[in-house]
Amino acid sequence: MSSFFALGLGLATKNSRGEIIEAYFPQPILKPSSDLVNAIKQLGLDNGTLELSATQIESLATQVQDSELKAQMSGLHSEHRTAIAVLLEKDSDPASVAEAYLKLQILSHRLAKPHQVNLNGIFASLPNLAWTNEGPIDMHDINASITAARADGRWLNVKSVDKFPPMTDYVVPDGVRIAHTARVRLGAHIGKGTTIMHEGFVNFNAGTAGASMIEGRISAGVYIGEGSDLGGGSSTMGTLSGGGNVVISVGENCLIGANAGTGIALGDRCIIEAGLYITAGTKVIMLDDKNQNAGEVKARELSGKSDLLFRRNSISGSIECKTNKTVVELNEELHINN
Amino acid sequence: MSSFFALGLGLATKNSRGEIIEAYFPQPILKPSSDLVNAIKQLGLDNGTLELSATQIESLATQVQDSELKAQMSGLHSEHRTAIAVLLEKDSDPASVAEAYLKLQILSHRLAKPHQVNLNGIFASLPNLAWTNEGPIDMHDINASITAARADGRWLNVKSVDKFPPMTDYVVPDGVRIAHTARVRLGAHIGKGTTIMHEGFVNFNAGTAGASMIEGRISAGVYIGEGSDLGGGSSTMGTLSGGGNVVISVGENCLIGANAGTGIALGDRCIIEAGLYITAGTKVIMLDDKNQNAGEVKARELSGKSDLLFRRNSISGSIECKTNKTVVELNEELHINN
Amino acid sequence: MSSFFALGLGLATKNSRGEIIEAYFPQPILKPSSDLVNAIKQLGLDNGTLELSATQIESLATQVQDSELKAQMSGLHSEHRTAIAVLLEKDSDPASVAEAYLKLQILSHRLAKPHQVNLNGIFASLPNLAWTNEGPIDMHDINASITAARADGRWLNVKSVDKFPPMTDYVVPDGVRIAHTARVRLGAHIGKGTTIMHEGFVNFNAGTAGASMIEGRISAGVYIGEGSDLGGGSSTMGTLSGGGNVVISVGENCLIGANAGTGIALGDRCIIEAGLYITAGTKVIMLDDKNQNAGEVKARELSGKSDLLFRRNSISGSIECKTNKTVVELNEELHINN
Repeated sequence: MSSFFALGLGLATKNSRGEIIEAYFPQPILKPSSDLVNAIKQLGLDNGTLELSATQIESLATQVQDSELKAQMSGLHSEHRTAIAVLLEKDSDPASVAEAYLKLQILSHRLAKPHQVNLNGIFASLPNLAWTNEGPIDMHDINASITAARADGRWLNVKSVDKFPPMTDYVVPDGVRIAHTARVRLGAHIGKGTTIMHEGFVNFNAGTAGASMIEGRISAGVYIGEGSDLGGGSSTMGTLSGGGNVVISVGENCLIGANAGTGIALGDRCIIEAGLYITAGTKVIMLDDKNQNAGEVKARELSGKSDLLFRRNSISGSIECKTNKTVVELNEELHINN
Repeated sequence: MSSFFALGLGLATKNSRGEIIEAYFPQPILKPSSDLVNAIKQLGLDNGTLELSATQIESLATQVQDSELKAQMSGLHSEHRTAIAVLLEKDSDPASVAEAYLKLQILSHRLAKPHQVNLNGIFASLPNLAWTNEGPIDMHDINASITAARADGRWLNVKSVDKFPPMTDYVVPDGVRIAHTARVRLGAHIGKGTTIMHEGFVNFNAGTAGASMIEGRISAGVYIGEGSDLGGGSSTMGTLSGGGNVVISVGENCLIGANAGTGIALGDRCIIEAGLYITAGTKVIMLDDKNQNAGEVKARELSGKSDLLFRRNSISGSIECKTNKTVVELNEELHINN
Repeated sequence: MSSFFALGLGLATKNSRGEIIEAYFPQPILKPSSDLVNAIKQLGLDNGTLELSATQIESLATQVQDSELKAQMSGLHSEHRTAIAVLLEKDSDPASVAEAYLKLQILSHRLAKPHQVNLNGIFASLPNLAWTNEGPIDMHDINASITAARADGRWLNVKSVDKFPPMTDYVVPDGVRIAHTARVRLGAHIGKGTTIMHEGFVNFNAGTAGASMIEGRISAGVYIGEGSDLGGGSSTMGTLSGGGNVVISVGENCLIGANAGTGIALGDRCIIEAGLYITAGTKVIMLDDKNQNAGEVKARELSGKSDLLFRRNSISGSIECKTNKTVVELNEELHINN
């Protein structure tokens, strides 16, 4: 194993001006072997991105031992896309389109967890693209492409206009169900055993650790622990817009009810009842084991604590917090992803 | 009419190992005629699934009288898919992929209402598939297919990774609008005159009886009566995850407001105000006809009752229930689906 | 400049009965020049829709000076679609499919703002269509098309069954991001600098004036001012269903929190906290500058007023309104749409 951070061998799409606008890596490699790094270096690449000729692809293939990697190499021959190698010596800020795409795919391939990869300033490295049924199209070309397709008898579906593509156009991790993939961005980390229903959403640099039923929204940076359940339409407050600076996380075996939300981190085995939104500034009445008022706290003081149940008393209207003794069990049948 | 439960003549997709992974039936037949059942039996099928040769398709076609069915037969000749017959003597638990798909299509063709077809254990009969713009692809093949498409200049859109496909890839019932079909699963029963807006969602074995404006989520098993309206982002609590064991239903001419939700069944002419979530355990203050407090009840005691209006008093914070005297009228123009 | 309202030169799709079912205009023209109107009139069209022969297209092209328009003309030659001209002397009620489509595209091209184009009775002019990956298909033909595609080895994705297509199948305005285009209808007006996240939604005759982060639902008729932010799952009450007759608008620099909603118009710099739904009939406690109760009002009396903050007191359960002194600032990085 070398000291290098990562290597990606893949296929890139260029726009009409010859610039790389996205890059696909069938199997990103974290901590590539010294042999592999040396083979790349012999092609003249020490750090960054290199376009590979057919000869260079074959030369690389002869030098790798791993049979899976050899097979992968042969997949890089293409008349339609540009074969590239991206070699990253360190986990620096992403400095190009291809580097940014490699890092997002490292997360979605589960080679790293959210917050383990340096994505500083990634928005600046990602071009805004029109994602169509014929692939990504540069913003300068999209309207003319729509016209040309009509005249030609085709129909160009512009599915998204965004800096991030859907994850499953790049990789489908094993052991997951994602009912509506348009709502899971590349750079999401979806744990094995997770089901994301139609109302679920996962931003980049966010996701689940293991088996979860996700019918709510996982904002950028939010990581959900094993066995936790996000109810339909529930919300985890992000830091990018509207929310504060605290990164939300949710521990294990939590339940955020339908249409509920949280602006604080949750520990393990917490429940927020359906329809209730807790923000950091929410004043909460703590209940003791006899359900008696034990004083008021701001919710931010409860951030990250375990075994809490949040509810709004439907008679008094007060938001209350008590120790959660209900066990959250997810339906077994629902979680069979084979 | 025979005593048989159902018959499907259709086209199946196989994976690279020759297994059926989905099956499409242009017009499922409930209670098939004795003549038709006998014709199938002569091909050697008493119960279950049979792959049909071109000769068998023609043989069947000569034996049916119904001109529409004859035309349907001719549609089964295909070089790309496998023609099949599925004959079900009884409404037993679905025992194969093709049987499960036939039952889901019986619901979506409105030949049966939710809960009228035996779907016990259906998750086990449905393979998890990658649903792409090129059709369903087996999970073992999907990542290699993505790579091959890139190299080949195509773009494989993986739209969903799920056991259930969208309903409208199989049938578009007459007299409906469904603004975003990715959110209506096969096995949904969408009543004539229903409009499902972009925020609407309908799970399998669930749906609407007639004209409704659906901008909220209809969970598995939930059935919505004629003339009822689900506001944007509203939630009906399911039994599969998070909710309890009680199956929710909504009667006629109800209104569940935007971002509201219910964990109890509603009778007819009920209203839940926007933003309010009622769960079975919610304590509710009953108001008499002079708006005076007439005592507290748990919401589950009100389950299925008619003419109730639920609101949270915005001064006291209490959840109140009063007899609903407001008539819910849906906008006429919106409901023209021709 | 003539006194005519609008001109569209474009390509129409016909159904199997030869009727126009949708029309695409690469660049609709508001207030067309007298020269252009006269050139159209010479082809025999004074008002309404005319199908153009190849000869007529060329004849028109010789008479226009504008080089961009000349180029556009050449795009109208098609073996697969019908070239049409739609000339509208006045902004009358839309009287045909092509006229309705022209008006919706005028809005989405930002040639007019919501409520500036007469769309009276537009539902009656728009056929309900199945929008597929192969383009729009008439409702009479869709189920047979699904069957034929299967037999033929293709897969017909019916993406939507609706009177309105997604905006970006017609035009991608500059300077926007729309993460999930299926949720923005043709006829939306999306201001430059707006980002619409996956949970955002924009109906026709609605939209944003400028830079906004939209993660909530903009109902038909609702217009959002520069710098305002709609949190995830937030709701603006429409007039078509459920809501009343008052058209909602949101001023500049407002924030509607996640899962919140409004049934009243907001002025500038208003905030509704996450999870709170304000309807016109909601009683609100006004707070003075010392946070003391200054009396109760119905929310409709606050409609359109500026600098208000709405919250539900989490101890008393009362909905309160105070003057908002928090400045809403949107994250800069998020709003770079290049």
